[in-house]
Amino acid sequence: MQDEKKAVILLSGGLDSTTVLAMAKDRGFACHCLSFRYGQRQELELEKAQHIARHFGASHLILRVDLDIIGGSALTTGAAVPKDRPMNTVGQDIPATYVPGRNIIFLAHALAWAEVLGADDIFLGINAMDYSGYPDCRPEFLEAFARMASLGTRAGVQGRAFRFHAPLQYLSKKEIIVRGLALGVDYSMTHSCYDPVDGRACGHCDACRLRLKGFAEAGAQDPAPYAS
Amino acid sequence: MQDEKKAVILLSGGLDSTTVLAMAKDRGFACHCLSFRYGQRQELELEKAQHIARHFGASHLILRVDLDIIGGSALTTGAAVPKDRPMNTVGQDIPATYVPGRNIIFLAHALAWAEVLGADDIFLGINAMDYSGYPDCRPEFLEAFARMASLGTRAGVQGRAFRFHAPLQYLSKKEIIVRGLALGVDYSMTHSCYDPVDGRACGHCDACRLRLKGFAEAGAQDPAPYAS
Repeated sequence: MQDEKKAVILLSGGLDSTTVLAMAKDRGFACHCLSFRYGQRQELELEKAQHIARHFGASHLILRVDLDIIGGSALTTGAAVPKDRPMNTVGQDIPATYVPGRNIIFLAHALAWAEVLGADDIFLGINAMDYSGYPDCRPEFLEAFARMASLGTRAGVQGRAFRFHAPLQYLSKKEIIVRGLALGVDYSMTHSCYDPVDGRACGHCDACRLRLKGFAEAGAQDPAPYAS
Repeated sequence: MQDEKKAVILLSGGLDSTTVLAMAKDRGFACHCLSFRYGQRQELELEKAQHIARHFGASHLILRVDLDIIGGSALTTGAAVPKDRPMNTVGQDIPATYVPGRNIIFLAHALAWAEVLGADDIFLGINAMDYSGYPDCRPEFLEAFARMASLGTRAGVQGRAFRFHAPLQYLSKKEIIVRGLALGVDYSMTHSCYDPVDGRACGHCDACRLRLKGFAEAGAQDPAPYAS
């Protein structure tokens, strides 16, 4: 165990980041999970994240980020979450749930923690397929972030290269679920919904619809509880 | 006033960032100042920042950043601040006061707020001369950050270019003070010390020594209160 390489995993408690954690664990990394309290509508996803990290034997840190004070998004300002949008519009525009700077702020914290831990590897569940609408989920963004990280940290200047892994980058939701199920991920632990009802997924927001479509295409049943 | 361009200013309450605020104001920007509560040893610099922002008629936002939870630096962990180091070593190595990811996290928040405000300009007081030891104060870092920002935000993708201004980048402390005095900055409002005693600067940490040397070279008296 003494030479086990450390990795920082951005863990939201959702399907994607939980699959990424399983992938990092499968590759032999000692996993350090990072979640954020940023004015989400509910604490549910943080509870899920805590449970998931424990399940995978990973350390877990929850940091406060004042995205709600900065404002500007449906996820933090109380604006209505879009429901039952035609599926062909999902992933086309920049969604109302885009939060200015969110992934940049999250990655900046992950980088800082990685530098403190002595971890060179940072994993995150961004995805170019379903979430092409989010500028901060695109591969070219991540490459630019990695370059900035190597120039802006002591570790980078001293020659340590931070590696940002986005193993879901080119996978469809179906493919993500197939990989996760092959790694034994219990998706009943995970939470994706933007607008849950009494702790159960709404089934109608973009996140729920993408998830349900993915399970259907993977020929599997989503074990998570749904309100309708 | 309706066409006044907005700018976000990273304001620590120190000599450098206060000079930057005066410069941005002088250039006609409507200034929105951003400070951080990140486990500093004292609240003194935030009080100073608040006072300074008010003095300049700027809006002011203080955000919480959990740098103290991430750990890893003399500024946030309670390790001893170096005192009376030979001046030729200051700015050579990466100092003990380097905080992993600090400027990256601060800039990420500034970028998010700029996107929400509709500001294209972000000002910060980084400096390549006195602080060459900090990787996240170098011009090449800032260029890489700007490129990442243009790729990772809606505003950037939609063609808005964020401009990161570091007007002190190539100035010595003496030159910064000369410019600030010419703009009428009252430096008694500002705070630079890493280790103040009863609200007064220690006079012996790297920050105090650089500041005092700058005032001496500028042929001016530092109006800030010193403990010794």
